[in-house]
Amino acid sequence: MDIPSGDTARKRISESTIHRLSRYFRTLSLLEKENFETVSSKELAKREKLTPAQVRKDLSFFGSFGTRGLGYPVAELKAKVSRILGIDRIWRVALVGVGNIGSAMVSYKEFIKQGFHIVKLFDNDQRKIGSNHKGIIVSDIKNLRTELQDDRIEMVIVAVPATVAQYIVDDIVKAEVKAILNFAPINLKVPSGVHVRNENMVMELEYLSFAMVNHHSPKGGGKA
Amino acid sequence: MDIPSGDTARKRISESTIHRLSRYFRTLSLLEKENFETVSSKELAKREKLTPAQVRKDLSFFGSFGTRGLGYPVAELKAKVSRILGIDRIWRVALVGVGNIGSAMVSYKEFIKQGFHIVKLFDNDQRKIGSNHKGIIVSDIKNLRTELQDDRIEMVIVAVPATVAQYIVDDIVKAEVKAILNFAPINLKVPSGVHVRNENMVMELEYLSFAMVNHHSPKGGGKA
Repeated sequence: MDIPSGDTARKRISESTIHRLSRYFRTLSLLEKENFETVSSKELAKREKLTPAQVRKDLSFFGSFGTRGLGYPVAELKAKVSRILGIDRIWRVALVGVGNIGSAMVSYKEFIKQGFHIVKLFDNDQRKIGSNHKGIIVSDIKNLRTELQDDRIEMVIVAVPATVAQYIVDDIVKAEVKAILNFAPINLKVPSGVHVRNENMVMELEYLSFAMVNHHSPKGGGKA
Repeated sequence: MDIPSGDTARKRISESTIHRLSRYFRTLSLLEKENFETVSSKELAKREKLTPAQVRKDLSFFGSFGTRGLGYPVAELKAKVSRILGIDRIWRVALVGVGNIGSAMVSYKEFIKQGFHIVKLFDNDQRKIGSNHKGIIVSDIKNLRTELQDDRIEMVIVAVPATVAQYIVDDIVKAEVKAILNFAPINLKVPSGVHVRNENMVMELEYLSFAMVNHHSPKGGGKA
């Protein structure tokens, strides 16, 4: 069963639900390796530190999978979650900024495992342009727009300093790329229809320092 | 004015509020550089793509700062947000796992700028142990517990493979460290009172692929 389309469905799916789907996918992959054929909402909940009701609610939203008493078929559920998340296919990804974080991302095995293939690299540093990085030749940032289009890139990872990030993102938008993962500590401006996610490691440390200083366990906690 | 203490306050502060405080802090730092002496909730809201009402609500929660018609004094508000977030001081941070991501984190300038000082490195690789990494000698993971205690480490960044992450975190917990930033794609088990934040770059790409496949703009969007 496909995800319900239309505005009603869109409004009802929260950020934390999508992140929980990612977590279910990972846990289902583990269960498959452990030769589980079925899994109860109770077991899934235990592994995710959620309530069984939450798990059932999340999964029922995408169609009724479970059988009372037997639980969910692991392989089938994993395939469905994978399809919902859009990771049952290959995504062509480019990375801009081959610095410390950029280089780490190129070598990050989890990306390729989930179908995110970094196939293009860009930098403005003459010493880096033309060099081979894990089998990919670094392109000149000057050609960003045309090369993104020519290579049918669908997602871009931005790992450049905050001062130039908006300028580069404007070019990415012109190349009609609709998905950006941004590591620069800046609020990017993009037109509607372009999806941006921000990775900000400092923000997570600040979250921890807040918790330590205020002896605080925040409610919710989608990332915790 | 300090943050209200007690369970009532704790229950009311959500994950996204804390992340918004981090964003206010960064924007206030920028405004200070741009020589703004005061800022209106409208201007703050515009820069953060929030409603002025949301900004006023967030800031009023931590005491009344603003003056009607004049707005908030930038330097004072920045100092208060910094104190609330616990970044008006230095935090002693250790990093475990000097691989691709770990190395990038050691060189990450944003950490030190906000007071997060990485002062210890650990690895289990004999070729790395004893080597100098940005002025820090890499310690043997075997001595993790004692060295964390001896060096009064307050936060640990975990950048090791998922298969060993729980084992290492158990040691960190025994060393009485109360804050962990985890890059391993695994749900860590920690006792209550220990704060864990997970950085999962794949999850953010999956979020983007979900959005692309379902033409979806989720509600909320604390990270977007």
